[in-house]
Amino acid sequence: MLRKQFCVNGEWKDSKTERWMPVSDSSTGEVIAEVPCCTVEEVEEAIASAASAFPAWSQTSISQRTQMMFKWRNILMDHLEELSVLCAKELGKNLSEARGDILKAIEPTELACAAPFITQGSASLQVTTGFDTAAYRMPLGVVAGIVPFNFPAMIPWGWIVPLAVVTGNTVVLKAASYTPLTSMRILELFYHEAGFPKGVVNLVTCSRKESELFLTDPRVKAVTFVGSTEIGKHIYSVAAAHGKRVQAQCEAKNHALVLEDCDLESATNAIINSTYGCAGMRCMALPVVVVQESIADRFVQLLKKKAMALKVGCAYDPETTLGPVVNAEHKKFICDWIQKGVDEGAELVLDGRDLVVPGYENGFFVGPTILDHVKPGMTVGDREIFGPVTIIKRVKTFEEGLAIMNANPFANGSVIFTQSGYYARQFELLTDGGMVGINVGIPVPSAYFPFSGNKDSFFGDLHVLGQDGVRFYTRAKTVTKHWYSEHSHQKTVDTWEGTVERI
Amino acid sequence: MLRKQFCVNGEWKDSKTERWMPVSDSSTGEVIAEVPCCTVEEVEEAIASAASAFPAWSQTSISQRTQMMFKWRNILMDHLEELSVLCAKELGKNLSEARGDILKAIEPTELACAAPFITQGSASLQVTTGFDTAAYRMPLGVVAGIVPFNFPAMIPWGWIVPLAVVTGNTVVLKAASYTPLTSMRILELFYHEAGFPKGVVNLVTCSRKESELFLTDPRVKAVTFVGSTEIGKHIYSVAAAHGKRVQAQCEAKNHALVLEDCDLESATNAIINSTYGCAGMRCMALPVVVVQESIADRFVQLLKKKAMALKVGCAYDPETTLGPVVNAEHKKFICDWIQKGVDEGAELVLDGRDLVVPGYENGFFVGPTILDHVKPGMTVGDREIFGPVTIIKRVKTFEEGLAIMNANPFANGSVIFTQSGYYARQFELLTDGGMVGINVGIPVPSAYFPFSGNKDSFFGDLHVLGQDGVRFYTRAKTVTKHWYSEHSHQKTVDTWEGTVERI
Amino acid sequence: MLRKQFCVNGEWKDSKTERWMPVSDSSTGEVIAEVPCCTVEEVEEAIASAASAFPAWSQTSISQRTQMMFKWRNILMDHLEELSVLCAKELGKNLSEARGDILKAIEPTELACAAPFITQGSASLQVTTGFDTAAYRMPLGVVAGIVPFNFPAMIPWGWIVPLAVVTGNTVVLKAASYTPLTSMRILELFYHEAGFPKGVVNLVTCSRKESELFLTDPRVKAVTFVGSTEIGKHIYSVAAAHGKRVQAQCEAKNHALVLEDCDLESATNAIINSTYGCAGMRCMALPVVVVQESIADRFVQLLKKKAMALKVGCAYDPETTLGPVVNAEHKKFICDWIQKGVDEGAELVLDGRDLVVPGYENGFFVGPTILDHVKPGMTVGDREIFGPVTIIKRVKTFEEGLAIMNANPFANGSVIFTQSGYYARQFELLTDGGMVGINVGIPVPSAYFPFSGNKDSFFGDLHVLGQDGVRFYTRAKTVTKHWYSEHSHQKTVDTWEGTVERI
Amino acid sequence: MLRKQFCVNGEWKDSKTERWMPVSDSSTGEVIAEVPCCTVEEVEEAIASAASAFPAWSQTSISQRTQMMFKWRNILMDHLEELSVLCAKELGKNLSEARGDILKAIEPTELACAAPFITQGSASLQVTTGFDTAAYRMPLGVVAGIVPFNFPAMIPWGWIVPLAVVTGNTVVLKAASYTPLTSMRILELFYHEAGFPKGVVNLVTCSRKESELFLTDPRVKAVTFVGSTEIGKHIYSVAAAHGKRVQAQCEAKNHALVLEDCDLESATNAIINSTYGCAGMRCMALPVVVVQESIADRFVQLLKKKAMALKVGCAYDPETTLGPVVNAEHKKFICDWIQKGVDEGAELVLDGRDLVVPGYENGFFVGPTILDHVKPGMTVGDREIFGPVTIIKRVKTFEEGLAIMNANPFANGSVIFTQSGYYARQFELLTDGGMVGINVGIPVPSAYFPFSGNKDSFFGDLHVLGQDGVRFYTRAKTVTKHWYSEHSHQKTVDTWEGTVERI
Repeated sequence: MLRKQFCVNGEWKDSKTERWMPVSDSSTGEVIAEVPCCTVEEVEEAIASAASAFPAWSQTSISQRTQMMFKWRNILMDHLEELSVLCAKELGKNLSEARGDILKAIEPTELACAAPFITQGSASLQVTTGFDTAAYRMPLGVVAGIVPFNFPAMIPWGWIVPLAVVTGNTVVLKAASYTPLTSMRILELFYHEAGFPKGVVNLVTCSRKESELFLTDPRVKAVTFVGSTEIGKHIYSVAAAHGKRVQAQCEAKNHALVLEDCDLESATNAIINSTYGCAGMRCMALPVVVVQESIADRFVQLLKKKAMALKVGCAYDPETTLGPVVNAEHKKFICDWIQKGVDEGAELVLDGRDLVVPGYENGFFVGPTILDHVKPGMTVGDREIFGPVTIIKRVKTFEEGLAIMNANPFANGSVIFTQSGYYARQFELLTDGGMVGINVGIPVPSAYFPFSGNKDSFFGDLHVLGQDGVRFYTRAKTVTKHWYSEHSHQKTVDTWEGTVERI
Repeated sequence: MLRKQFCVNGEWKDSKTERWMPVSDSSTGEVIAEVPCCTVEEVEEAIASAASAFPAWSQTSISQRTQMMFKWRNILMDHLEELSVLCAKELGKNLSEARGDILKAIEPTELACAAPFITQGSASLQVTTGFDTAAYRMPLGVVAGIVPFNFPAMIPWGWIVPLAVVTGNTVVLKAASYTPLTSMRILELFYHEAGFPKGVVNLVTCSRKESELFLTDPRVKAVTFVGSTEIGKHIYSVAAAHGKRVQAQCEAKNHALVLEDCDLESATNAIINSTYGCAGMRCMALPVVVVQESIADRFVQLLKKKAMALKVGCAYDPETTLGPVVNAEHKKFICDWIQKGVDEGAELVLDGRDLVVPGYENGFFVGPTILDHVKPGMTVGDREIFGPVTIIKRVKTFEEGLAIMNANPFANGSVIFTQSGYYARQFELLTDGGMVGINVGIPVPSAYFPFSGNKDSFFGDLHVLGQDGVRFYTRAKTVTKHWYSEHSHQKTVDTWEGTVERI
Repeated sequence: MLRKQFCVNGEWKDSKTERWMPVSDSSTGEVIAEVPCCTVEEVEEAIASAASAFPAWSQTSISQRTQMMFKWRNILMDHLEELSVLCAKELGKNLSEARGDILKAIEPTELACAAPFITQGSASLQVTTGFDTAAYRMPLGVVAGIVPFNFPAMIPWGWIVPLAVVTGNTVVLKAASYTPLTSMRILELFYHEAGFPKGVVNLVTCSRKESELFLTDPRVKAVTFVGSTEIGKHIYSVAAAHGKRVQAQCEAKNHALVLEDCDLESATNAIINSTYGCAGMRCMALPVVVVQESIADRFVQLLKKKAMALKVGCAYDPETTLGPVVNAEHKKFICDWIQKGVDEGAELVLDGRDLVVPGYENGFFVGPTILDHVKPGMTVGDREIFGPVTIIKRVKTFEEGLAIMNANPFANGSVIFTQSGYYARQFELLTDGGMVGINVGIPVPSAYFPFSGNKDSFFGDLHVLGQDGVRFYTRAKTVTKHWYSEHSHQKTVDTWEGTVERI
Repeated sequence: MLRKQFCVNGEWKDSKTERWMPVSDSSTGEVIAEVPCCTVEEVEEAIASAASAFPAWSQTSISQRTQMMFKWRNILMDHLEELSVLCAKELGKNLSEARGDILKAIEPTELACAAPFITQGSASLQVTTGFDTAAYRMPLGVVAGIVPFNFPAMIPWGWIVPLAVVTGNTVVLKAASYTPLTSMRILELFYHEAGFPKGVVNLVTCSRKESELFLTDPRVKAVTFVGSTEIGKHIYSVAAAHGKRVQAQCEAKNHALVLEDCDLESATNAIINSTYGCAGMRCMALPVVVVQESIADRFVQLLKKKAMALKVGCAYDPETTLGPVVNAEHKKFICDWIQKGVDEGAELVLDGRDLVVPGYENGFFVGPTILDHVKPGMTVGDREIFGPVTIIKRVKTFEEGLAIMNANPFANGSVIFTQSGYYARQFELLTDGGMVGINVGIPVPSAYFPFSGNKDSFFGDLHVLGQDGVRFYTRAKTVTKHWYSEHSHQKTVDTWEGTVERI
């Protein structure tokens, strides 16, 4: 059994913990490593390491920090296949999805390579007579990341590290206990291949209890969290009470509205990928399809046909199109929700619960599942399941569909399938969804735009990625300058109110 | 006795409260009005009014909302003198300072007139093959403002209303109990002169207890607070626990560093205005001067001479250069701090405690006060006094001065007086101050830049004013579009991971 | 007969010219004023006046220049009706259109009120170790405007003066000889009501020959031209040879593509306004409609019916929906083109040539005219007519329509009418049109975006209005700073190449 | 003798020319290659190649074009040393300077990697009721580059190719006849290593006559020129007459103002590098030092001492600190100027004309030269010499120095050496220099800011690099959208003027 270490100050160290957490190969069910539940002292050590690396790193020039990012981007590209296999193994994504996970860590690293441009502040001479002003972006200090199991590369190494580090901060990460291996391997590359200064990124695994220190330690200035809404709210409130800034990406229940004028074949293909991709373990999946009654039967049949054509199998078998879910506990959670849906009165059109993959009998597989005729009031239509389960809701009109979608407390994303410019624009304007798709199953924009969830899917002001990400990891420093003549005592404006020039 | 009302849905209503709070003329000590301590039901009514005004106002075009701002700006300009007198009366600022208060509400209103420009989002065609993306700025809903007594016009009507309203939000304000009259008069103009739709801005006066509803009601999406650090932290944590965004501007203890190479005459003039202006009741005042030992005696003598030349008197007498503080309670608070400074061992160079203004014997006057030789460990040098009291700290070098300044937990602003480009740049780079002055006593930038306090002077991510203000009162909505050809089933990218184009 | 003057240094002066140019009331045909063909010496005097006003105006703070713009915006609003009547009289637009002309001068003035925001440059500390950089926007000097007859308010006073002046430049205008009165009246207000410093805007009327000085005088740094493509090219080349920047808005022949799936009633309403509004004398009119064969007959009948319902009459009669063209010369030009269309083989569906308005028998009226079945190779379908003449081209498919549109050398704007999101996006991406309308007859964006013509409709890089306008009237000044320590000779980077930090 | 080819459509082809131009090793004087003076037909072929590559390249997604840039940046880094030696050999820069030339081609390539961010346009929903607007950046078509001998890598491959290509344009380059080899080698890598599509960049060598086609061919949409002011003006006017956009970087004569309060040792080091680096063949060198009389003698002696310490030698010898000039013709040009300076009355403090480097007797060496007491009216103080010749002008005051500097017709850059914040700010505000240095000898900002020459040093609006560079190589396309309801005929705004919403 491989016992993993935690990393502070660029060194991997043995934990003194008594508690170890298993990591399994999701396709075989085999435990392939154990990670420590680091002690509070070890978490503190990680923070201290980041804090002591901060002064030198933050004073390193923008140019030098940017060059490190170019180097880092290349190293990640060079290790794409190795990392994809590791990700597929511990998480269960198929290889193509795992590769996407790594690539979505690389894309924000590429955004970070634009630091000398995107971190520019603003400035004017002679704002008022004799006074010049500039507003710069400055790093914060130590920033903490608390991340979930479903994107072991993208979330810590795409959403957090690139912009946090390139803007001059240092980082402490709590890796996901279910899927820490990919992140740990990337951190090895970060120091050994890229040669970042010691302490710029630190990593622990621990339980929620120990990671509370991230929320209270005064050296931590900002927390990026991705996980459940309940914990997200907790983090926001505790970290806030300790004066920190927070961005908390939380649960979702994205809905798609399928109108009768849509291109049904293309729409269904997009939905198949969105609803079953990564076995549904994506917060931007489409677990709910709201379909116009007139085409509902046709749509459900088409969806079922395409779902049944998916090849469920070992995540790292290149033939596989639908891999397992992350572990037994999560498989049970999903199956319980399917049963709950049936109990609540939904029609089980396709049932993936009893699927067995030959040769992988202990793998955590759930086949594609469809629950039709889900009505308001059934919890299965409202809450996050995070598995390959598609909920069908039927509506008469665009307006009814929109109302059902906006009634959901989550609003990470929302999608419409239509050929109509009019309905697309109405949807774009009126949906609560923070990320909106017009004929796009997973409406996540590229890293150059913010990942902008809304309502109970996000807490904070500034999202990850895009210009928002730069602003989250930096603060404004506004400088107003005035110089006294060396020749003579000039008449100067002595009062602040006097600088408000009115004519 | 004038009993004031509260305002919901554009109507002024009598409160059902039993508790009334006095408002006094600070120069005469006379109580000139009473304001209600509104009940929780009345606070709820204000929120409900704002919530019901939101749909129509948020869907009003940017162009129309902007036109209302131009009209509103003109109305405020037309009432500048009337409002200045009212402000001087209830607060104690001299007329020129009161005029500045109103003008600093107008300047952000002018920024809001730029809404069609500053609210533009970003967009690209063909981000990846066949996919277009746009990121728009959308209004939030109801936003709440909780404001202090010292800028009755600027804070609610400059920092909050203009950007919040022009971006499509509706507002609930808790006016300051000590100085609500200016704000109430402005709100009358808002509806009666400008004709804003009913419910766009609502105003209550109440105690902290009732205003907790602003932090917990789900219809309130954002809270702008200005006040003490203790309450600011409380607000941030409670509002966060209820999923809201917060910007909390808190206490300050701005320091200036006076180097031996500075233009001493000009520097002292700037400090006089900064430290005694508005009787010290400004969070961006300079209550502490850190002076290089070699010129310290000379500086203190010059400061004393200029301080003694100030004309203390009735706020709304045009001759007055230093008015009273806001009320008896606050006067006592300041005088207690002066005594504490003496008790802690500071040298009382000038004592303003026993000053009496003939004809205004009941006014709340405190004369200019100087405490020299304040050392680390004396609380009088660390905590906000908010009165016309100047603390002198003496240092040998630039480095010692910078270290003393950065040791302070507050970092709203910081200032250096020097003729040296080198020291100015070192200061600009290394000071913790969020707003930095180079030879500028009150380093508050114009409304077109953020009011960017730091450390315990600010909680949140996005400051008031500038581009930050626009972002605080709006959220990103990111839209990704793809259109299926009407001719034939095109081959489309079905997987999200597939949209990450690598070559 | 009213003989008008020219304006230099804020004073109206009699011209020494021998040549006078008549200005007529387009509705009655009566000559209502004469304007001088100013001498070259007088044109030079205007430039000298602007040049001598430049140093003081350019050093005036941004804040003060902005305040002047707010004042100016209000004055224009106050004179809206007076100016609209004057504009309608000299040009022939109906009152509502004339009001639009004035309002479209006010909108950019409102944009100019955003100067403290939109003129901000960019800045960073520590770009490379020890080096800071800022890039500011600076005014140019004297800028010249040469403007056409069809928007006497919007073009000089909307496209040129607001951004040029607020950014610190001074202006020389050559007003349109046919319609100078509105502009002259506005200039009176500029000095007498708004109180701008003398010489900030100067105005002459002259022939093309005298205005060549604008292109060659070294004090003129930029030229904004609106007029014919031939003159535009000439101006660009001559001004360029003299080192100036140029933006030349030129001729157009905007096409609309009407697809069979469009909302025909709404589309036709939009086309009626676009093609006949201002009697077709707008460069963003739609003189050509490319209609899908399947609905072409139906569309032409509907267009004809609505065209015949227009009320042709005196421009300043509130009942009028279609006023006269600007003068007899222009009327003849239009009528000749109609005849040429007939001669080239087009089908004359509606003929506006012989229309007489009772009571206004000498007015320069041309009624709505429709030429159908215009084919490639007929010049009437390719060249600007600038009258109420609609050209119909018939196509089978979207692709054929797009190809016909892109074959036109002009590309100011282009429009599609469709309900299809797919075709709208294809059009948006593939049309050469610089300003694109989706179901919008006159696709001119608001002043907060650039007026972005393309191909032979525009010469230069930076368009009028929006951020482009700000950049056109300012230049970048990039400042790189480094400070030597006062303590000791630090090791500094001596070579420029050494500042390229690589790791 | 190596005869080089030209490159069209990704292929290297033999020229049919009769005229061949020699390329020499500047250190040995040996001719190492000949390049063709391509015929007009061959130049046309290059344009045709670029034009036919445009449709596919411009429709390639931003994401894919960006990925090519990352790959390209890495290839250039991998060939840094090889390219540096080649550059040193053909041009004469020392190795460190040659390396800088390549690195300064790589830096803008890194800026181009930020394309998905820096090419974003702007967009708003509901600008006016029911109308949405977006402004996108679109590629232009074929863009041409005409480049000088002194930066064979940086100018074509840094200033032109990265931003032009990443924004979707295709390129034709006229390489410098004196130093084409570096550029040719880079182009080999562009196709053979990076695999860019054929025709994206094309390269010819020719005389001025043949390259006129770049200015007149309608397929060329933009011209970037770097060279003499006379040719720059010609290019601007001819290309303008043919409707193209132009950015022409021209001659310079940068001045530094050395104030008596400066850090003389550090300032002199910075000046030594600036004035003698690259043997003075840089448009951002400091050939003129304006020094305050009080320290002039001291400064000149120090400068002379440091100049004499330079090691003149073979460019590609690592010991060399001052290499040869580019060829015999240019050496004669410089020596003639030195003589002219003497003839005009300047004092020859140091004379580099007769320097011989043992072992390199045929190399084109000119040693460091100082001409003191240069007065207004001496042409040697006003015109570009482009060699290691330093002109000293002496002044009494800051004001006199500033006036002398601003009197120069060129204003590429200007520099001040001072410790005073006041003088630095006055200089920053009042100098005509487009790029300003405060204690910086070569005030060229990084590629993330524009290279912003002024006056006779630049013609056009938009500079190379920074946001300017992106805008130069793209045009705005503004789209206004409106959708008709599918339910019913809505009342829509039919008139354009009606979209100006006033309240």
